Amino acid sequence: MPIRTALTRAFGLEYPVVSAPMAQVSGGRLAAAVSGAGGLGLVGGGYGDPDWLRTELAVVRSETERPWGVGLITWHATRETVELALSYEPSAFMLSFGDPRPYVPAIKEAGCALILQVQSVEDARAAAEAGADFIVAQGTEAGGHGADARSTLPLVPAAVDAVSPTPVLAAGGIADGRGLAAALMLGAEGALVGTRFYASAESSGHERAKERLVGASGGDTRRTRVFDVVRGQGWPEPYTGRALVNPFLERWDGREDDLIAALDDEARAFREASASGDFDTAMVWSGEGTDLIRDVPAAAALLRRMGEEAEDRLRSARGFLGEDSEKAR
Amino acid sequence: MPIRTALTRAFGLEYPVVSAPMAQVSGGRLAAAVSGAGGLGLVGGGYGDPDWLRTELAVVRSETERPWGVGLITWHATRETVELALSYEPSAFMLSFGDPRPYVPAIKEAGCALILQVQSVEDARAAAEAGADFIVAQGTEAGGHGADARSTLPLVPAAVDAVSPTPVLAAGGIADGRGLAAALMLGAEGALVGTRFYASAESSGHERAKERLVGASGGDTRRTRVFDVVRGQGWPEPYTGRALVNPFLERWDGREDDLIAALDDEARAFREASASGDFDTAMVWSGEGTDLIRDVPAAAALLRRMGEEAEDRLRSARGFLGEDSEKAR
Repeated sequence: MPIRTALTRAFGLEYPVVSAPMAQVSGGRLAAAVSGAGGLGLVGGGYGDPDWLRTELAVVRSETERPWGVGLITWHATRETVELALSYEPSAFMLSFGDPRPYVPAIKEAGCALILQVQSVEDARAAAEAGADFIVAQGTEAGGHGADARSTLPLVPAAVDAVSPTPVLAAGGIADGRGLAAALMLGAEGALVGTRFYASAESSGHERAKERLVGASGGDTRRTRVFDVVRGQGWPEPYTGRALVNPFLERWDGREDDLIAALDDEARAFREASASGDFDTAMVWSGEGTDLIRDVPAAAALLRRMGEEAEDRLRSARGFLGEDSEKAR
Repeated sequence: MPIRTALTRAFGLEYPVVSAPMAQVSGGRLAAAVSGAGGLGLVGGGYGDPDWLRTELAVVRSETERPWGVGLITWHATRETVELALSYEPSAFMLSFGDPRPYVPAIKEAGCALILQVQSVEDARAAAEAGADFIVAQGTEAGGHGADARSTLPLVPAAVDAVSPTPVLAAGGIADGRGLAAALMLGAEGALVGTRFYASAESSGHERAKERLVGASGGDTRRTRVFDVVRGQGWPEPYTGRALVNPFLERWDGREDDLIAALDDEARAFREASASGDFDTAMVWSGEGTDLIRDVPAAAALLRRMGEEAEDRLRSARGFLGEDSEKAR
């Protein structure tokens, strides 16, 4: 049985789940698999490489008939990449990390649903004013980029109260049906899920990175600028990335200036490690929900499992009220 | 209608809510009000002043017939304070922050339910091994002392998986019925609620501190050691306290060594500010749920409001499944 919320009604979904547009991880295959199974799959535009974007958007468009979307890093976006993405006719366009207003008119004119991701109540208000159709309230426990600020559980209801009736989605730490059901109880209309889909068959992440996610705990993750520094990506305040702690991170965390001084050698070694899948050096972005990741299934199976677990939780909710939940059906 | 969980069954509660044992805030009046209304009220033993403890435990024992409890800071506890607290015959004994094992036998022998609060999955396992009857999984968004580590939403299901069948309670960021219902969806058997009860009529907090909580956002809070340093409280790693940001905190955060050097003057000024209710200097411990705090009601009314909102959320959960929740009754 599908779960019905403002999100599922807007896109005709089975489950109120959006797969996060993770750079270099959320390609067309993953987005198509999620959308095909009744979620909303987003292609990650990442740092805006037009060739990658063309390839992956062509894949998602050819592999699913259902609604899908694309997500860009706002401070890194250009009018050209936005227009390029829109030319593939996505149903949803997500912008994260920065002022989205320069790109809102083009997205709206294309008839595309606008999803804006924020990390604070104030930015949620600004997103509503900017015309967001959905606002993703992202807690600090999220993997990859975000802010070292609010946590999902208290942020979501505060954002809901601030922007109602604009629908809010929860992001950060949601990796199973329990988290999805909790998000709905908090007032969200669905969840944006990243790390859990990283560890799926169709994600473009390295297989050894997926293996590390399976073995890790949320306590093994940390917010850092180290991986941005070594990649020469000058992310603006207040954004940092949450990744699995590895020897490279242990070595440089808090010593970013030393890393900059050693960048010629370190950047080359880092690129090589990334290419060869040496994750003692290369990064694995990961949220705190990684305790809940114990396998690398197909994305469709993963979405169904998450949706069915959430259904079970929602169906049994009346059991807490002392009613016989079976009898009440 | 009551909400039924392992927590409510253990103590005969109406609602699966425990009021946190906040030092200098959770006195006998607050604990008795919460217990009297069908929650589990805990007296905060704080730094173990025996006179304060005697006074407040006498109050709670005289003011309610229902189960109540007491909570101590483990690293600050002594056998004497534990025995003193037990002599008032609490139904529940909570220990937080440190190794509880030296005190477990006395608490168990007294027939008291043992509640252990933890901030990580590993510590949850250790708490289960130590004999906890309930384990509180506390996220970093909690007010007052805790760890700069895991967030509530992903920590709770990970702790549940790690210690099942020992029941888990969720703490950190829960200030209304939405958070309580979410905690139950995550697999918790209830919630430990602190800051929300700070801002209640019966809490021993200063009225001006309560006013500040009403006006604040979770983004106005920060984890810090500054208030421990100025009070001469040498909290061990990894514990810090989450408080409202005020001019004193802004002035000294990150400059703890300078504060130590200036401690003679600053500690005196801080004590005076605390006594006079000058919260530009004195601290107001606060969790991130403070966005959801908009009044200072009686604790009983607050508990009922939280419980009834959670009931509404749980009752309407089937609405997400496309079933008519009214018809399904």
